[in-house]
Formats: sequence, C-alpha cells, structure tokens
Amino acid sequence: MAETLDNTEEAFGITDRLLADVLEAVKARSSANLDRLLDPLHPADVAHLLEQIDGKYRPDVLSLWSGGLEGDVLSELDESLREEVIEQLAPEELAEAVRELDSDDVVDLVEYLDEPQQEAVLEALDAGDRVVVEQALTYPEESAGRHMQSELVRAPEHWTVGDAIDYLRSDVVLPDQFYHIILVDPRLKAVGYVTLGRILSHPRDMPLNELTEPTFRTFHVAQDVEEVAQAINHYHMITAPVVDDDDRVVGVITIDDAMVFLEEEAEEDILRLAGVGEGRLSDKVIDTTKRRFPWLAVNLITAILASLVIALFEETIAGLVALAVLMPIVASMGGNAGTQSLTVAVRALATRDLTTANMWRVIRREVLVGLINGLIFAVVMGAVGLVWFGSPMLGVVIAVAMVINMVVAGLAGTVIPVLLEKTGVDPALASGAFVTTVTDIVGFFAFLGLAAVWLL
Amino acid sequence: MAETLDNTEEAFGITDRLLADVLEAVKARSSANLDRLLDPLHPADVAHLLEQIDGKYRPDVLSLWSGGLEGDVLSELDESLREEVIEQLAPEELAEAVRELDSDDVVDLVEYLDEPQQEAVLEALDAGDRVVVEQALTYPEESAGRHMQSELVRAPEHWTVGDAIDYLRSDVVLPDQFYHIILVDPRLKAVGYVTLGRILSHPRDMPLNELTEPTFRTFHVAQDVEEVAQAINHYHMITAPVVDDDDRVVGVITIDDAMVFLEEEAEEDILRLAGVGEGRLSDKVIDTTKRRFPWLAVNLITAILASLVIALFEETIAGLVALAVLMPIVASMGGNAGTQSLTVAVRALATRDLTTANMWRVIRREVLVGLINGLIFAVVMGAVGLVWFGSPMLGVVIAVAMVINMVVAGLAGTVIPVLLEKTGVDPALASGAFVTTVTDIVGFFAFLGLAAVWLL
Repeated sequence: MAETLDNTEEAFGITDRLLADVLEAVKARSSANLDRLLDPLHPADVAHLLEQIDGKYRPDVLSLWSGGLEGDVLSELDESLREEVIEQLAPEELAEAVRELDSDDVVDLVEYLDEPQQEAVLEALDAGDRVVVEQALTYPEESAGRHMQSELVRAPEHWTVGDAIDYLRSDVVLPDQFYHIILVDPRLKAVGYVTLGRILSHPRDMPLNELTEPTFRTFHVAQDVEEVAQAINHYHMITAPVVDDDDRVVGVITIDDAMVFLEEEAEEDILRLAGVGEGRLSDKVIDTTKRRFPWLAVNLITAILASLVIALFEETIAGLVALAVLMPIVASMGGNAGTQSLTVAVRALATRDLTTANMWRVIRREVLVGLINGLIFAVVMGAVGLVWFGSPMLGVVIAVAMVINMVVAGLAGTVIPVLLEKTGVDPALASGAFVTTVTDIVGFFAFLGLAAVWLL
Repeated sequence: MAETLDNTEEAFGITDRLLADVLEAVKARSSANLDRLLDPLHPADVAHLLEQIDGKYRPDVLSLWSGGLEGDVLSELDESLREEVIEQLAPEELAEAVRELDSDDVVDLVEYLDEPQQEAVLEALDAGDRVVVEQALTYPEESAGRHMQSELVRAPEHWTVGDAIDYLRSDVVLPDQFYHIILVDPRLKAVGYVTLGRILSHPRDMPLNELTEPTFRTFHVAQDVEEVAQAINHYHMITAPVVDDDDRVVGVITIDDAMVFLEEEAEEDILRLAGVGEGRLSDKVIDTTKRRFPWLAVNLITAILASLVIALFEETIAGLVALAVLMPIVASMGGNAGTQSLTVAVRALATRDLTTANMWRVIRREVLVGLINGLIFAVVMGAVGLVWFGSPMLGVVIAVAMVINMVVAGLAGTVIPVLLEKTGVDPALASGAFVTTVTDIVGFFAFLGLAAVWLL
C-alpha cells in the first residue's frame, strides 16, 4: 500500500502525467490530443480519470472526446458521478453506450437514476433486454436476482461435448465472458455445471454429465447478494448459478462482480466502524457534512453522559485537581482496548468466525486479554501516579480503575456486537458508540469513585 | 450481515447443528458417524469446522475421521492451526494431501512452516513440483512470483482453434481449473491470451491470434501481489499472467486467489485502524495480549501527553471545576471527527482514489466539513454550557474550542495519513495514534487555554 502517491511503475490505474496531459488537451480544446490519450485506455481507467479530474473540466472532456463514452465506463463510474455524466450524453450516445452492456450492468446503472434518466436508458435497450432489466428491478435491492447477469450458457443434460461445441459455433448470441456451461433437465432445472476447460479437453462423444464439477451449488434469486459473494469466495467458485422458485436457472453471479461486492462490504464495515457512513471522496461538502453529522451527534450525547458522571464528583475534583489531570487516561485506555475487542468481534461476525459455537470462548478470551493488559498498565500507571503526584494512594486508585476499565472493555467490546447482531442491527454501525460510552462511564466512575472513597 | 448467529438457511458454511453432531460423534468415538458427516463437505467447510470446534477435540476429529484430510483442507485452514494439524498427520497422509495441490497452494502452505515440517512437505512432492515450489520460495514474500500458480496452458501464437483442441485432448497434464490459453512467441514471450469461450465458439481453422482479448496485461514476478490483486479487480481479469525478467510467462495469479488477497488486505486495514495488528480469533490469549500491548502502550503515551497539557492548567481547573467536567467533550468530538477524516483518507489511499492530483481538494473539503459541523456543535455545546453552568462566557469558550478542534481534526485526519504514505509508513497502522494525539492536545489546550484567558 505504500508509495501509491509517488510510484511511477503502477500495476494499474492512471499516472499523474496522463492526468496532466488530459487537462492540457482540454484547456487547448484539442479533440485530437484527447482522443490519442483516452482511446487506448481501459474503461475502468477512463472512469477513474473522470473521477480524479477537477469537476469543472469534466463536461469538456466528455464533449471534446470524439471517441465517445463506452457503456463500460458508465458502469465503472462512481455512483455520485453517473447522473452528471449521463446528463451530458446525447440520447443516441447513451443508447449506444448501454446497448453493449450485460444485463446486470444495466440494472446497476439504472437502479439509482432519476425516473426520466432511467426511462431514457431503458428505452435505448432492445425489447428483450428491456424485459430482462425490468424483471431484475422487481427483485429486492440487495438480492441475487437484482444483481445477476442473465447472459449465460445452458445445455440439456443429455448433450455431448460435440453437441456443445456445435451449439457454441452456431450463430447463437453468447455472453461476452463465460467460463461454464450449466446443464439443465427438460424442465430447465439446473442439475450441474461443466467448466469450458473440461469440455475442451475431452472427445466429442463424451457426455457432458460425466464432466460436471463435483460440487454444484445454486442460489435463490431472493438471497442476499453479499452472502452469495461470500459463498463464491468461500468455495472458490467462478460462476454462481441463480435459480427462481421453480429451481430454473435464470442468471449467474460471476466472481469478478462478487469481488466488487465483497470489497464494498469490507469498505462499508471500515467506514461504519469509524462512523462515516456510506460517503465517497467525490461527494459534495454538504453531503459529507450531513452524513457525518448524526455520528458526531451520537458521540456528543455519549460524551455528555460521561461528563454527567464527572459532574457527580465535582467536589472530589475540587479537593484534588490531580484527578482531573489523570482521569482521561483511564477512559482513553478503556476506549482503546474496547475498540480493539469490538473490531475483532465485528469482523469475526462478518466472516462467520464468531458463532454461537465459540462465542463464550471468545468472550472469555477477550476478558482475559483485558485483564492481563490491564494489570500491566495498572502497574505502569500506578508508578506514574506515584512519581508524578507523590501519592501512593493515588497510584493505587488509578491502577485499580485501569484494571476494572480494561476488563469491562474486553467484555463490552465482545458482548455488545454479538447482542446487536442477535437483534438484527449491524454491529459495525452501532458498536463503537455503545462500547466507548461504557468505557468512558466506567472509567470515570471507577477512577473518581475510588478516589472519593480512598483519597478524601 | 445480520442474523449470522441464528440463520438456518445459510449461503455457505457449517450449521451449529452439524458442529454439534460432529462433537457427539467424536465423544462417541464413532468413525462411521464422523465419516458420514465430514465426507460430503467441501474442504473449505471442513477447515471452517476444524477452526470452530473446541481445540481439545481437534486431534480426535483428525484421528477418527477415516476419510482423511485432503490437501485443500490444509490450504483453507487458518495459518495458526496449520502447524498443529500437520503435526498430527502421518508422513504418508501428508504426502498424499499435498501432492494434489496446485503449486501456489503448496507454497502458501509451507512458507511459514518450521524447517522440519517444510522439509517433510517438500519431500512428499514429485521432483518437478518440488523444483517449482522451491523456485517460488526464492521470490520475496509478498511478490507475484511467490504466490503465482505455475500450472497454466500456453500455446504457440501461430496455432489454430483446432490445434488447441487437439493439444488439450491429448494426454497432457492440465491445471485443475483454467479459463484462458496464453499465446507465446518462439522465445516463450507472452503475446496475448484467448478465453476458452472464444475458442469453443469458433471453427477449427480459426487462428488463435485473431481471437485474443483486446487488452492484455502481464505482471512481473517481483510485483507486489496485492497490487496484482487490485489490478485484477480493477480490470475484471480472471487470469493474470506473471512473467520473468525475459518476459516469459512463468505462472498466473487467478481471480479467486486475488479475491482472498484483497479480503486479507481490507481485513488488515480494519484491524490496523483499530490497533489490533494481525491477530486471528483462534490465537492464544497470550499471543493476542502481546499483539495488542504495543498499541495500548502507544495510546498510554499519547494519553499522558494530553494529561501534561491538562496539568498546565491545574490552577485554572482548581478555580472552576466545571472545566474538568466539560473538557472531555471537546477532546472526544475532535477525536471522532478526526477518526472520520482519517478513515476516509486511509481507504482512499489504499484504493487510489486519493492521489497527488486531488489531494488539495480533499484536504480543503475535510477542513470545510470540520468547520461546518464544528460550527453546528459549537452552538449546541455553547447552549449546553450556558444552561448547565449558567455562564455565558463558559458557553463561548466551549463553542470556540469546539470549532478549533474540529477544523484541526479535519486537517490532521487527512494530512497525517498522506504524509505517512509519502514516507512509506502504512497509514492504516499509524494514523490513529497521531490524529487522536493531535485532537486531544489541541482540544484540551484550546478549551482550558481560552478558559484561562477569558474566564479567570
């Protein structure tokens, strides 16, 4: 991950140099130069370039570039920019762009567009493709049915290798990319699949149903697409067949799309854990501000709760101001230990490593880790308290408070995400606020409370 | 992600029921029952089961299961458990298990084993495979050369579809899974690749070099494997050819492996951001404690630095204890806002969305977001301060301190990760401690400093 900003020999993406050249071509209003720079690029790189470039030049890039935008660029583009770019395309440009896309990419493109733009894209499609896309849009937002690609290759289960080759060589329309043939029975029920590699390496008279993969899993249209993506990753599948209520194959989720879903999920967890919500770097200031506001508001409430605890001990602090100096340390260490435990728990829940089967073992482990680290830091802080303020008893107070808070941190950091998951709340979203509230309150209460009893 | 703990209809993985049945079979010492339960499972699920089951029953599962462990189970198993499981296998079991693995899986298996275990695995391989694995082990740890699979299908560039089919049907040894044929010139230099789908859908006399994919990228053996994985994701590749110094194809990285690398990278970022390091749920208490200790130690130092700032204002606090009650709020809001900014920045650096080209725009945006949210919360906290403690000036002090700290949070949260990246330090690893140190110190200093000047 290091060196991203300076590295010149990149595995992928666009260079700063290219971006500068594009800007220059735009400022010189030179279509020829722009074509020379953009035409050889992969659609993913064109999209990346449009995201990176200063927004005020984006319309010029699109109008000056005579190569014109491929549909794939639209698919690759950040959602926050799609509407803007689509608005700038002439209807016939848009039509040409979307017609070359697979059905899942069209669905992905139109699902969040405004009504008129969605209509414009759908109208650009052939009648058949349009039906497929409209059908997909009837499935729930995060379902396999919504995100599957309807382009796939099916074959009757009684076919031979030769039948398959003849069929593929006929003038049938094939998906852009496909790696399996799915075998179906006369009622179109999926019964197995064969990799193209096995078809190619066997004689023409070999029956396909003797070449099927040992394990065959199908997924229902209503299944959560993220779960399908996790299954693809777990079982190293390249193509995941999606079936309807009658077990008929109606589409596939491919591994490259699954990879994108998993990336998005991990990204979502990271951002949620940090209280950032869904935001993108290309969002407007006001959108970002709005999105982050609720998290800060929740934090303000928890911070005020912690302050109320401190307020209980105003007299104690007035009697010994050193307490005000030291109390944030106890709270901070608890907050950090709690964040460690909760992050491990949240990710383990997401990857199914934390289950009912090992829950108690994990909780016991986290509490023990909190206890051991708590004891070590208790000794350190006890010494610091003693040396800094010359009071052995103050050292004892901070040491004991530290142990209490770090044990509580380990416990809360594991139990809270598990409870949230059990009640159906995303633990990545809500655990942080709960756990730090607990560690702040316990930290201040233990430290100031013990001080009130033992010191004054 | 919800419902993982209770859901019975899972897309993948093992059920609690299965785990309970396996435990029962082990306790009854019934090989027959264990075989019935484990034999039908996918290797990934067997590995998952071994990870989930209480450690003390693991040896019994392995010794009672007469089906025996496939090599794939070893590959799927958590690193922390591999040594333990390998130790329990008889030499001939181990040999049989590893012989069926692709070269990259063998490398992955042996690279972190102790010398004697590594030797045992290598000795189990055929001479040819052994050379390939030993060659891979000479490449740097995180390089494409280390992680590539040497099994691939190459063809001379002048071949036709018919030549390829005849070759694949001959008794040549083929990879378990392959989706492309890589075309090479007479010096074995890679010149392009063809998907199996295109070969199957064209007549026998079609030259392969007319069917190649429009874009063809190769990666060098020394390239960072994570970068290759990101490129695979970026360009939706299924197979990434890896070449040596002479541009000869020596292996491939496949998309399913790339998916695992990307998952690991995201996981690593999440855990590093939370200060947890590399840990796994199946690690021992003492290892986990050790791994988390340094992060807590760093946090203790930054907390003590913040306390030193507070100590500067002991007299101010002694004069108005309300300050001690309110000061954690300012620090906490700054810490949260800073964490939001830094998380966005760290991920944007990892995904290359934050580059030299848009750095200043991103910094400006984060500062603006901090300013706007700071102003809103300043009004709220000013009011709270006024109502709670009846002092308008205290309200002003907390309001101004809040704005200052949240602007600094936006600035530090972006600039610090960018600077760390520029100097080659992983920003996910170190940003958190720096940013919260800044927001703690600025928060306490601004609030207590303004109070000292304006209130007393």
